[in-house]
Amino acid sequence: MATAGIILIGDEILSGKVVDENARFLTEELRELGVALRRVIVIPDVLDEISDTVRDFAGRFDHVFTSGGVGPTHDDLTMDGVARAFGQKLMRHPELEKLLRDYYGDKLEERNLRMADVPEGVHLVHGDHPTWPVIALKNVYVLPGIPEIFRRKFKSIREQFRGQPFHLKCVFTSDEEGRIAAQLDRIVATYQVQVGSYPKLDASDYKVKVTLESKDAAEVEAAAADLVRALGASVVRVT
Amino acid sequence: MATAGIILIGDEILSGKVVDENARFLTEELRELGVALRRVIVIPDVLDEISDTVRDFAGRFDHVFTSGGVGPTHDDLTMDGVARAFGQKLMRHPELEKLLRDYYGDKLEERNLRMADVPEGVHLVHGDHPTWPVIALKNVYVLPGIPEIFRRKFKSIREQFRGQPFHLKCVFTSDEEGRIAAQLDRIVATYQVQVGSYPKLDASDYKVKVTLESKDAAEVEAAAADLVRALGASVVRVT
Repeated sequence: MATAGIILIGDEILSGKVVDENARFLTEELRELGVALRRVIVIPDVLDEISDTVRDFAGRFDHVFTSGGVGPTHDDLTMDGVARAFGQKLMRHPELEKLLRDYYGDKLEERNLRMADVPEGVHLVHGDHPTWPVIALKNVYVLPGIPEIFRRKFKSIREQFRGQPFHLKCVFTSDEEGRIAAQLDRIVATYQVQVGSYPKLDASDYKVKVTLESKDAAEVEAAAADLVRALGASVVRVT
Repeated sequence: MATAGIILIGDEILSGKVVDENARFLTEELRELGVALRRVIVIPDVLDEISDTVRDFAGRFDHVFTSGGVGPTHDDLTMDGVARAFGQKLMRHPELEKLLRDYYGDKLEERNLRMADVPEGVHLVHGDHPTWPVIALKNVYVLPGIPEIFRRKFKSIREQFRGQPFHLKCVFTSDEEGRIAAQLDRIVATYQVQVGSYPKLDASDYKVKVTLESKDAAEVEAAAADLVRALGASVVRVT
């Protein structure tokens, strides 16, 4: 099963000026694609933290997505950080430079060309986006922080990450967690499924939502049927 | 300046079943309290990941807050993880056991007492919450994942974290980032302020929002006045 990590780079999220939209969007996308998201981190615009985190994530997960820190200003350090993570230097990429020159024309400022400075060894992922490719180094995909562009760029390359879908069943019970915990232990020990237990305080008709999931649909069905039998009359519904 | 990190523990966030409310709430609270949030991470219900992350954060930041993974079921591993992070064992805490026995009365299941199993060496932070204290080990505060309880518990202890407030000015300009980047470099080099630059695609009247902030109000005022002078007629407004 393919795994993924998301790195959000930006003081603006940590200081509460901006509420994250990108991790939230990508979490749903990865889920739908059958990719197991294993970690999300928000770090500041600090070069060492970016490079350390990228190196760590690139070793842990199949796919790594960064958000933010690409642009022409002093706080745009993601390309530097990704380069350092892999012991590479930045280089001015001819194809990206041409795209920028075409886009800005005679309004081009020298600083805009910083957007063409990328780590040596990157590959440009063209997807179905008409103009600007996604820049990737090994398994790290560098995406911009502006939500509209983040979403557009990810959508243009998303199908290359598609795997087998997840299957999920939810069992809602009117029992408290402490009363069902032993049954959940048994399900965990018997079936190859991920079991989650989520108490709800203010729900009118249930106390705990139990989730059962796996890439194997039959295993999920069997575990759900077993749990429903075991919990008996306390089961409010199954979805 | 006091720093903080937030650790969200829960498969349910990574799989997109639940949208985080707790980090979002705590980000705003810490900001208002003058505490610099430096990192947020979302990790799964996996013991080693919890203990490694808690140990790492506890060494990096003044205050660490965990959310989730406390309860009586198999996926509630936070107390174990915090104990391991500091090389401690779990013990049944007499004061917490009494609270649980009083709360559940004759409905108590043996599993409910797991909620009284906490790392050796914890301190109970009573705040102004009427019943259940916040459990802390050194600089790590263990909070539950259920948003209503997370908020209530944090609010009961929040004032102990209060420091000097942050000061912020925002300068909105109709210029592109590439055109103002050199001025921003100069502001960064001249003043002791954090400078952020946030382009906006769909705004009607500006292209970039520049944020200037510090705990020193006079420094923020001076940096803002300087930047406004330098950007001249492109400044749309200052807030």
